[in-house]
Amino acid sequence: MKKMKKGFLLTFEGAEGCGKSTQIRFAGRWLKRKGYRVELVREPGGTPVAEAIRNILLHGKGAMSSATETFLFLAARRDLVEKKIRPALKAGNIVLSDRFQDSTWVYQTYAGNFPRSAFEKAGREATGGLEPDLTFIFDVPVRVGLGRAGKTDRIEKKSLAFHERVRKGYLEIAKRHKRRSVLIPHQEGASKVSAEVEKVLSRVFK
Amino acid sequence: MKKMKKGFLLTFEGAEGCGKSTQIRFAGRWLKRKGYRVELVREPGGTPVAEAIRNILLHGKGAMSSATETFLFLAARRDLVEKKIRPALKAGNIVLSDRFQDSTWVYQTYAGNFPRSAFEKAGREATGGLEPDLTFIFDVPVRVGLGRAGKTDRIEKKSLAFHERVRKGYLEIAKRHKRRSVLIPHQEGASKVSAEVEKVLSRVFK
Repeated sequence: MKKMKKGFLLTFEGAEGCGKSTQIRFAGRWLKRKGYRVELVREPGGTPVAEAIRNILLHGKGAMSSATETFLFLAARRDLVEKKIRPALKAGNIVLSDRFQDSTWVYQTYAGNFPRSAFEKAGREATGGLEPDLTFIFDVPVRVGLGRAGKTDRIEKKSLAFHERVRKGYLEIAKRHKRRSVLIPHQEGASKVSAEVEKVLSRVFK
Repeated sequence: MKKMKKGFLLTFEGAEGCGKSTQIRFAGRWLKRKGYRVELVREPGGTPVAEAIRNILLHGKGAMSSATETFLFLAARRDLVEKKIRPALKAGNIVLSDRFQDSTWVYQTYAGNFPRSAFEKAGREATGGLEPDLTFIFDVPVRVGLGRAGKTDRIEKKSLAFHERVRKGYLEIAKRHKRRSVLIPHQEGASKVSAEVEKVLSRVFK
């Protein structure tokens, strides 16, 4: 099995229904076939503490402010980074994460109202400064995405205007973090999207 | 019933086994007898979201970093402030809280390793800038306090050195926030401590 010297953190981002869960599985299989050691995680979650937090975030009753959500996401992330992501990277594995810090910035700060400066200070304590080596951002028109996602959890039930801001937030991330991010434009057909992902992976992992 | 113009936030702080739960009940009864409208809350907790967080904090399995704890306490506080404390203050009530922001500063920043500057930025988002009008700090020698508390939850099980730092942290708060805090020195006998509390209350609430 191929081990990388310092591990590699690969994150999958995008609005509800953008197809990232399908693509993370595709990328995982692709990397395994190439002989890499791969670990898949999904945010929020991945440790007992983070799974308990996930349950509050997705199924908690009643409205929750952006600040409450932010703190819960950061708590879950800190636990996951510490107990799973860092050890996996240290072992030289490729960690594929379904959502990471960009999601909190987009949903709670850009589309929500949690202040940027507090997010930056607190966010650094959640990740310990860990940045993704590569981030796939899957763009999707809001109505298409929400149609696919089926609007089942608390966050998916927010207003259309909120989801439009989420989409714009991701485009903003793609612009601001050109070095580590790849924007994958929307197109019908998961296999066409996978072909785009494969092109990028082939370039990065030879 | 007496309503205050802007409400009044009265917090009860101190290490495990300091007797604050006994004293908050005493103070609540005393204020009610004087005709004030009183609401008692206990941190973390007090809303469905915050109670779910409390469960993770007190009974979660495995070690948790100061950062994970901080974010969880802040999430619970934000929800409680928003949904219960602010509305009660707005209605002109006296809110008595068993622990508040000082606890997080003492346990996670002063005795733990969550950085001060991140705590200040994030903490402000948790309370929305709300400060207690008056804080009772009950001092207690560590061995006395832990003996009383019975060491049942995850935080009470930390090392003696940690609890010594907690005690010092509270003394530091008493020094730094002279205007709003009253340090009640340790003495045996809850009724003697209540007499001290009553003296202060009689001065503040005539």
